[in-house]
Amino acid sequence: MENTLVKTLYSQAEHDADVEVEVTGWLKTIRSSKKISFLEINDGSYIKNVQVIMDNNALENSEEIRKAAIYSTIKVVGKVADTPKAKQPFEIQASSITILGSSNSDYPLQKKEHTPEFLREQAHLRPRTNTFYAVFRIRSLVSFAVHQFLQSNNFVYVNTPIITSSDTEGAGEMFKVTTLDLNNLPKNEAGEVDSSKDFFKQPTNLTVSGQLNAEAFALAFRNVYTFGPAFRAENSHTTRHASEFWMIEPEMAFANLQDIMNTSEDLLKYVVNYLLENAKEELEFLNGAVDPELKARLEATKDADFARVSYTEAIDILMNADQEFENPVEWGIDLQTEHERYLSEKVYQKPVFITDYPKDIKAFYMRENEDHKTVAAVDLLVPGIGELIGGSQREERLDKINEKIAEFHLDPKEYEWYAELRKYGETEHSGFGIGFERLLMYVTGIENIRDVIPFPRTPGNASF
Amino acid sequence: MENTLVKTLYSQAEHDADVEVEVTGWLKTIRSSKKISFLEINDGSYIKNVQVIMDNNALENSEEIRKAAIYSTIKVVGKVADTPKAKQPFEIQASSITILGSSNSDYPLQKKEHTPEFLREQAHLRPRTNTFYAVFRIRSLVSFAVHQFLQSNNFVYVNTPIITSSDTEGAGEMFKVTTLDLNNLPKNEAGEVDSSKDFFKQPTNLTVSGQLNAEAFALAFRNVYTFGPAFRAENSHTTRHASEFWMIEPEMAFANLQDIMNTSEDLLKYVVNYLLENAKEELEFLNGAVDPELKARLEATKDADFARVSYTEAIDILMNADQEFENPVEWGIDLQTEHERYLSEKVYQKPVFITDYPKDIKAFYMRENEDHKTVAAVDLLVPGIGELIGGSQREERLDKINEKIAEFHLDPKEYEWYAELRKYGETEHSGFGIGFERLLMYVTGIENIRDVIPFPRTPGNASF
Repeated sequence: MENTLVKTLYSQAEHDADVEVEVTGWLKTIRSSKKISFLEINDGSYIKNVQVIMDNNALENSEEIRKAAIYSTIKVVGKVADTPKAKQPFEIQASSITILGSSNSDYPLQKKEHTPEFLREQAHLRPRTNTFYAVFRIRSLVSFAVHQFLQSNNFVYVNTPIITSSDTEGAGEMFKVTTLDLNNLPKNEAGEVDSSKDFFKQPTNLTVSGQLNAEAFALAFRNVYTFGPAFRAENSHTTRHASEFWMIEPEMAFANLQDIMNTSEDLLKYVVNYLLENAKEELEFLNGAVDPELKARLEATKDADFARVSYTEAIDILMNADQEFENPVEWGIDLQTEHERYLSEKVYQKPVFITDYPKDIKAFYMRENEDHKTVAAVDLLVPGIGELIGGSQREERLDKINEKIAEFHLDPKEYEWYAELRKYGETEHSGFGIGFERLLMYVTGIENIRDVIPFPRTPGNASF
Repeated sequence: MENTLVKTLYSQAEHDADVEVEVTGWLKTIRSSKKISFLEINDGSYIKNVQVIMDNNALENSEEIRKAAIYSTIKVVGKVADTPKAKQPFEIQASSITILGSSNSDYPLQKKEHTPEFLREQAHLRPRTNTFYAVFRIRSLVSFAVHQFLQSNNFVYVNTPIITSSDTEGAGEMFKVTTLDLNNLPKNEAGEVDSSKDFFKQPTNLTVSGQLNAEAFALAFRNVYTFGPAFRAENSHTTRHASEFWMIEPEMAFANLQDIMNTSEDLLKYVVNYLLENAKEELEFLNGAVDPELKARLEATKDADFARVSYTEAIDILMNADQEFENPVEWGIDLQTEHERYLSEKVYQKPVFITDYPKDIKAFYMRENEDHKTVAAVDLLVPGIGELIGGSQREERLDKINEKIAEFHLDPKEYEWYAELRKYGETEHSGFGIGFERLLMYVTGIENIRDVIPFPRTPGNASF
């Protein structure tokens, strides 16, 4: 008999009560009366379980089934009866139940509340819980929605390198990559480690961003994007930082700040719409169990015209705010989360783009504005999160980029290829980056980044 | 005036000769007669250029345009005239041409043949050539086709960790990841490097495969897949090995070897069909410039029923072959590329699955067959490449997997969570891996893996 997915059963408005189906899945719960037992089976295809009714007297092996441990693997054959008045829309009346694989009575995720900390220690088992099932299915759907939106808008996906000899930001701690035997390091005449003996014949690190490489491809394909892992070796123990995370980095030639604001707003709304259509059950569950404002926030995002305001105006607003900030506000500061959330949650009550930041707090590659004080940078601040997207117009003028490379004390040799992109085909171009996990926190309501990453890496933790 | 993409112009069957359009792009070539100049402009949206006609006497700045260096950035306004009898289907008759950005006369990729070696040194510029434009656009399309096929078949995408404390294969050189100062390493009492002082408080490496982590998710979501970077620190200098590459790893619960053969055959055909529909121009170009058998091979793949034969039968065929092999054939050997290509190119002349390999040459996690000599493993061999896909049914029995962990001298503590997947919810499950770059070589005809990776990493090379 062909296997039927639980997802398929839920997608059918009515069921033929005369036809037998076969379902395979895992036993989530079982409760028995003398005559009848109720089994909840989840087959992985859908967040919801299917209820199976077992007549204890009719099935030869009913005793064995009743003793089965949670998460035993089970095959059920039976007819599907619609139950419009019950909690679940249908149930399977089992004609046979087979135990395919065993489980154990000390299964660590018995049905009860667990702390997030405990569940992180069970990262191999936690996707079996409703919350993490919902979160990680949404993670998959958001990935696909991002690809679909960008591909349908003629963006070319480019896999930028993970191992790199350069440091995009010119700042931030990086992970070293080496094959040298740490207990037996080759040394040069000065007694220092001889990197020419290393695998790549030079020191290498894990990438912090694919942007610079993506720029090279944007100057060939016009619109491109990266979507891959990035790394920060910062010893920070917040709920918002992981050592390994994923980034989406669209990069567009013949595009300015307005263009990337338009594109990123469209992208974000596309993702939200995609989830509202394709993750109804998951959002419903998270709205109940995790964040009661989740669905309202997503509906509002879908319908809002995102606000746009300059950094200078935003500073004015903050200086005249009717609330005290822990971090004092003056022109020139980098906005802190409290400022970002005040702007998006209190002032605009929707996502807001802040443009044209002071050049001293931004990266070397951002295009200097005519005022020589600010750069054509933009951040998108969203309620509940703060900064979700950061982008800029890139400095396309050869002389200016070389000045910036010198000013930021970057090694001109290492950035020669990057400068050459300006030497051969100087083009207005812009791009933005989305921290994928930040986006997931926004669309799931989950407040700790460790809980939107399948197997999170943070200082001191590389388990699994 | 709104910008029109060259891709859009090519998608229109007819053009209104009275309407002006604006195109921005890069100057690829220019040739002039006394009266008229012909400019080829590429705007990145399409592999083909648009031809622009400039009346030298009509445009004030025609002298400046005629002197423009290759890859100058240009804006053209003009009417589109259909030219059904010419080489190109239409041309733009320029009413104005503006130079938006400069280039330089020493542009390294002037129109002529370059060696692949030279172009690898110009990895930031080579996507501007037709060959690499075609290859990297196909890379993007194949990525998307893979996601689309798997998502539409209810597979959940899971981002498995890149930094890992374990070694999936129990073999193969790995890259170390550390934040320790190599010139000032902390030592323990025995005088060895003290990894407890490192970022993750233990030694960590770059992943060689996400499979084990994916298995955990398959036992929650039924069908999952990874698609991300993997690493091998092998000092191999072949045309088929890179130190950093991407892998696609579907993993399916309630699935055996037959199921994964069916799924991988469907996936491969879906990808090929997607390219035949969405990359016509690119395939046409590569068929002419790189591999004259490319299109025929793809058409054949689309239509073939892949052959299926056991390793034992394959060894028989090879032993009776009408050709000498460099590597002698006997039961128990690992098939070499010459054997694989003989089977797929000479014997079957289409893709062929080889199943049930000797257990001694395969990984610890593969399910042992009843004969106790072979495991339920499968490789797909394809013409021109050899092995493209490798998969297996996974050992789901707790006692057997623990035996294998001991037999392979793996640290049981490190694999405890992996064994627990069997302890709690023992389930028949199977999976396969596709080397993404191998797949790209198959669908582009490119013979060196360095030329299907945007910025390749190989021993001694981490440039860009």
